[in-house]
Amino acid sequence: MTAITLLTDFGTADYFAGAMKGVILSINPQAVIADVTHEIPAQDVAAGAFTLLAAYDTFPEGTIHVAVVDPGVGSARRPIVVSAGGHLFVGPDNGLFTHIYDSQPSFQAFHITASQYFRQPVSTTFHGRDVFAPVAAVLSTGVEASSLGPRISDVVRLSIPVTPAIIHIDRFGNLITNITRDVLPARASLLVNGKLITAFRSFFGEGGSDEPFGIWGSAGFLEIAVNGGSAAEYLDVKRGDQVDIQPPKDT
Amino acid sequence: MTAITLLTDFGTADYFAGAMKGVILSINPQAVIADVTHEIPAQDVAAGAFTLLAAYDTFPEGTIHVAVVDPGVGSARRPIVVSAGGHLFVGPDNGLFTHIYDSQPSFQAFHITASQYFRQPVSTTFHGRDVFAPVAAVLSTGVEASSLGPRISDVVRLSIPVTPAIIHIDRFGNLITNITRDVLPARASLLVNGKLITAFRSFFGEGGSDEPFGIWGSAGFLEIAVNGGSAAEYLDVKRGDQVDIQPPKDT
Amino acid sequence: MTAITLLTDFGTADYFAGAMKGVILSINPQAVIADVTHEIPAQDVAAGAFTLLAAYDTFPEGTIHVAVVDPGVGSARRPIVVSAGGHLFVGPDNGLFTHIYDSQPSFQAFHITASQYFRQPVSTTFHGRDVFAPVAAVLSTGVEASSLGPRISDVVRLSIPVTPAIIHIDRFGNLITNITRDVLPARASLLVNGKLITAFRSFFGEGGSDEPFGIWGSAGFLEIAVNGGSAAEYLDVKRGDQVDIQPPKDT
Repeated sequence: MTAITLLTDFGTADYFAGAMKGVILSINPQAVIADVTHEIPAQDVAAGAFTLLAAYDTFPEGTIHVAVVDPGVGSARRPIVVSAGGHLFVGPDNGLFTHIYDSQPSFQAFHITASQYFRQPVSTTFHGRDVFAPVAAVLSTGVEASSLGPRISDVVRLSIPVTPAIIHIDRFGNLITNITRDVLPARASLLVNGKLITAFRSFFGEGGSDEPFGIWGSAGFLEIAVNGGSAAEYLDVKRGDQVDIQPPKDT
Repeated sequence: MTAITLLTDFGTADYFAGAMKGVILSINPQAVIADVTHEIPAQDVAAGAFTLLAAYDTFPEGTIHVAVVDPGVGSARRPIVVSAGGHLFVGPDNGLFTHIYDSQPSFQAFHITASQYFRQPVSTTFHGRDVFAPVAAVLSTGVEASSLGPRISDVVRLSIPVTPAIIHIDRFGNLITNITRDVLPARASLLVNGKLITAFRSFFGEGGSDEPFGIWGSAGFLEIAVNGGSAAEYLDVKRGDQVDIQPPKDT
Repeated sequence: MTAITLLTDFGTADYFAGAMKGVILSINPQAVIADVTHEIPAQDVAAGAFTLLAAYDTFPEGTIHVAVVDPGVGSARRPIVVSAGGHLFVGPDNGLFTHIYDSQPSFQAFHITASQYFRQPVSTTFHGRDVFAPVAAVLSTGVEASSLGPRISDVVRLSIPVTPAIIHIDRFGNLITNITRDVLPARASLLVNGKLITAFRSFFGEGGSDEPFGIWGSAGFLEIAVNGGSAAEYLDVKRGDQVDIQPPKDT
């Protein structure tokens, strides 16, 4: 049994997610379908990319991840399948897989041109149903990614900050940075939009005031949070804003 | 493995959808359950009917679709099962299957009277759990629809516009009409609430202003949309309002 | 095939629910995962406890219910597994299983100390992924609950009203009481926040005014509702408020 995950910005109020499941089960009734989320903010490719990164490797190798945050649906942007780290990824070539490329540098990407697998007629507005779901289902039956079209080396990447920055803001207003444990000096402080953050906590419930604090998040990155509030509002920041690491003061 | 889909107005915050899944798995642990949506607007039978139409035939033949938008739960309205186009539909006889009847004129409907299959005691408020889920599960084990009760020919139908009209408004405010490709003259315009719509687009991302435009939607109908906004608000219209097709002008 | 249900306050917009599914399928690809809800109000253990009570016994015996409403994640609160009524329950020892204890007095609870089953490294903020999901998956492969750690007899219980009271308010504002059919005299009235409720209905659609009325809810308890409105707002009450049963007047 192969798992197929779904990550989209379609919401769950309409027929969109259901239609993708129907197409998959029509091709492979044995597929195990798991919703990751359908509530990526509309057309927010960067939020989709982060959420996919945080979820995908909890799934077993061989899982096929369908990700559709696709402002360019109907235009010339390419449908692609990416093989990386034992997982397959299916979706538009618009940067949605940027973090996968970065974390699995030996990935292989293919431009999906094997239109015989598409649901006909292919609409101009819903490639989740007509292109990506059927391709994922076909892959789950054992078809090779490399047979779906030519290998490509010019995949689209999001511009990811290389210096410390906020790469995601979750729905609670917590700020997820790109700072990992190996780059943060002990007893360092953080400067965010002119505000110095010196407190670090080991879990959310740990004591404390209404001041923002650093905490190691479950996706492996340093997060900045405020107890019972939105750090994004408190600090008046947005995704992409920089975070300055202040070395520990001599004491 | 038989798929059972769920479409309700129960939301996902309470135990309702979970209880339906539990009942199904208690009767048929092999059933594959797929949520279409639980977010049909409360008691909006017409919205449920449209969403079911748009989703059902992506699923394989033999799928059992449970649809529960049921303002009359507990009253004398009949529980029914409908066999149409190789699919089965289980739910209240209140018009929810109107589009199925229209698209599959050789459908057969049965009044479910085989109460031995119901979950006891049958509540007066939650037939999704006590009547429709167990009946769907029983059908998935091979019981024939015709064995659940007498065939009926007087199913309830929604009053569906026969002239061009808005039949659904999605959560983005896009207007889904009942206009199909075969009835729309080339270079026609649309008149909606006194406003003339002359622009047509082939996909959402295609250029354009903030004026409303026509686009062929993924459910097979002409839709009217506004870039990044709500066409329903822009044009101040509601479901059921008419759409006048203006023949192309001689040029 | 063993069913594993998920009930959390994580919402469905982030990667949290998806990550739990991935961990489960990585350990047991045959597990059947059913979402009960991920929309318990944040950190509302009592709401989670009620929802779990209302849903769990629709599932077949042998089902494993993962429940994570966990304000104390990362602190010293214990992870536990509870065997009760043929079902298994996995989650934090914070009262989330109080109604299970009450309805299944011969339950057995175990403190999960078998950390070899946890996902490593165990984060301080997401035990749903790192502790509870993997333990549930391991249980679904046949590992005994009693092998996960020492049996305990001092489980945490919520303070549940023993006199008639409101134990839950659903998202529509309906008031669910702890009153069952066997304790309510015929022709009794209810006094709630100084307001006398004398009307009872057998189903929601049954006639009536805008006054609050009693109705037997699908979870087996008396509920108080207002047609098309919020009884909680109408009566200005909150969870835990008392309900006085007024004996029938002699007539």
